[in-house]
Amino acid sequence: MKLKIEDVDNLCTGASFLGAGGGGDPYIGGLMVKQALADGARIDIVDPDIIDDDSLIIPTAMMGAPTVLLEKIPSGEEAIRALRAVETQLGRTADATMPTEVGGINSTIPLFVAAKLGIPVVDADGQGRAFPELQMETFAINGIKGTPLGISDEKGDVATVLTGDNHRMEKIARGITIRFGGTAYFANYPMSGADVKRTAVKHTLSLARSIGEIILMSRQRKMDPFEELETFLPTTSYSVARRIFEGKVVDVDRKTEGGFTLGNVTIRQHDRRSDCIISFQNENLVARSGEAVLAIVPDIIAVLDAETALPITNETLRYGQRVIVMAVGVPEVMRTPDALQQFGPSAFGLPDVFVPLS
Amino acid sequence: MKLKIEDVDNLCTGASFLGAGGGGDPYIGGLMVKQALADGARIDIVDPDIIDDDSLIIPTAMMGAPTVLLEKIPSGEEAIRALRAVETQLGRTADATMPTEVGGINSTIPLFVAAKLGIPVVDADGQGRAFPELQMETFAINGIKGTPLGISDEKGDVATVLTGDNHRMEKIARGITIRFGGTAYFANYPMSGADVKRTAVKHTLSLARSIGEIILMSRQRKMDPFEELETFLPTTSYSVARRIFEGKVVDVDRKTEGGFTLGNVTIRQHDRRSDCIISFQNENLVARSGEAVLAIVPDIIAVLDAETALPITNETLRYGQRVIVMAVGVPEVMRTPDALQQFGPSAFGLPDVFVPLS
Repeated sequence: MKLKIEDVDNLCTGASFLGAGGGGDPYIGGLMVKQALADGARIDIVDPDIIDDDSLIIPTAMMGAPTVLLEKIPSGEEAIRALRAVETQLGRTADATMPTEVGGINSTIPLFVAAKLGIPVVDADGQGRAFPELQMETFAINGIKGTPLGISDEKGDVATVLTGDNHRMEKIARGITIRFGGTAYFANYPMSGADVKRTAVKHTLSLARSIGEIILMSRQRKMDPFEELETFLPTTSYSVARRIFEGKVVDVDRKTEGGFTLGNVTIRQHDRRSDCIISFQNENLVARSGEAVLAIVPDIIAVLDAETALPITNETLRYGQRVIVMAVGVPEVMRTPDALQQFGPSAFGLPDVFVPLS
Repeated sequence: MKLKIEDVDNLCTGASFLGAGGGGDPYIGGLMVKQALADGARIDIVDPDIIDDDSLIIPTAMMGAPTVLLEKIPSGEEAIRALRAVETQLGRTADATMPTEVGGINSTIPLFVAAKLGIPVVDADGQGRAFPELQMETFAINGIKGTPLGISDEKGDVATVLTGDNHRMEKIARGITIRFGGTAYFANYPMSGADVKRTAVKHTLSLARSIGEIILMSRQRKMDPFEELETFLPTTSYSVARRIFEGKVVDVDRKTEGGFTLGNVTIRQHDRRSDCIISFQNENLVARSGEAVLAIVPDIIAVLDAETALPITNETLRYGQRVIVMAVGVPEVMRTPDALQQFGPSAFGLPDVFVPLS
């Protein structure tokens, strides 16, 4: 599939939804992709089921605190330098790139890299949403080594990380990101086409585009975007979508620490009868109302504008916003015992047991 | 010069003296070198004036908080992995290694690397003592790029850093060191033999050995080690050595922060008439008594046992030690305006102007 300029806003809006409050606002990334397309670049999004088993796929992405991203604009060369550093380590050039996560800005980074390098983007990722840490990947769960990792910043600095342990890769790369000033662009989990087929969450860029199209087009089609999402998502590998809370943002407690944006948002029902508190580490982790858990990772918790259904990322939350919280059940591959160990409640230090929405 | 087992204790003791309170205790490094020699390894220490101009020298060292080094024993492979990572980036193998600093454990790391790899060690370094940060090198002052830097830990993790700015190299490598657990082993400033001749502080391993020999041998030769040092050092490029304070350690305020050991030690005169307060960031930076500055970086401030003249490193300072503080004027190449900018008082945030001892 050749990406068209008119697809980009849909894709970014859907990516923001799948970003679960984090993932970084895809606005800047979307602009960069539109500019590349307007300049005549071609971006091919290819189905993972048809890529060559022997091809080399090097995913590209950004990491760090979304709050910092707002003020630290990328030049576009960062992720390319990171990918080149991985190629140098491997002694081989990439045949395609791919998102490591489909949520937020990380849906757009590989598109831009692909436009610049003239390679395709595989329609798949390793999180099926956004998660805050690098080992939280279906790739990792299925035995793919995250390194060599290449990482770069907007000043032109480059570092590489080699380790046999994906948790240590995260820890070291996070330390580098902090020293880079809070955001960084990286390439990791280089793998064969066969490994993509075996380990990735498939067709997630297409999914993001479809979600975005529902949100952006419902109004002119005189449809309710919330109902449309609740109808559409169960037709995909995402089993269920459900509105879990509606109200007004009455408190946002947010800090940037350890290279993450951490905090809580409190949403109050319009009749003031109950509150919903959502805790986040970049991404929303758990939505609680009193003692009840309304939704919890790995299921997606998205805070949407109550009128437009446009996703609100955590760095843009503010008092007074009227919102609807929607939860989405993730594909089964993301709810296996191994997957829950990697990115279920306990991976984030939450005491709760995962109870799927569906 | 072929290093003999009996040289090692002398060299370590002198290195501890030149470590200016920091540099990490060379005890463990000395043991590793002695073991390698006992196992039949040969370690050649070569004069920088006779090395081939076209040869490739890759210095090796450790970094981090000396307080952590005490509890995190190296396997010996760390620095070799770091050197290999630099070689991979350059596509060329090292003809020799060299200390980046002659103070403390970093006099011994290149000896061990040389023993394992069968390459010589150049009798020179880039600090003429120990300093806490990677850009504080005569190499850097004279235009040598610090990267590619390779860095490794005892778990086998490896990272590389590529940047055109030696301060950013320090900042990024320090972040990696923290994530490695507080200590790391690295290789950086790869350079030609011609560049070593042009930029290094020469014959400093020999100097360390001579200083150590004076300290360890004075007693059996019925000499006063303090007088001997004050007589010997002015015959070298180190212009002066002088006892600046004598007393008892009455307070040690020390913390490990940002990958460094930071603090102050207070020494009280035996007649209690005055105190000397020495501030350190790994290494001793300034010795004050009341308003007077007794000595200040880049000059060396060494705290020595009052009986034996054995150097006391800051991580082993404790209440009640009877000590003599000796200051040493560093070579002229380390007191140029460029050098003072890199490792004079202002580089450590001190308000004082550098006034040389000599």
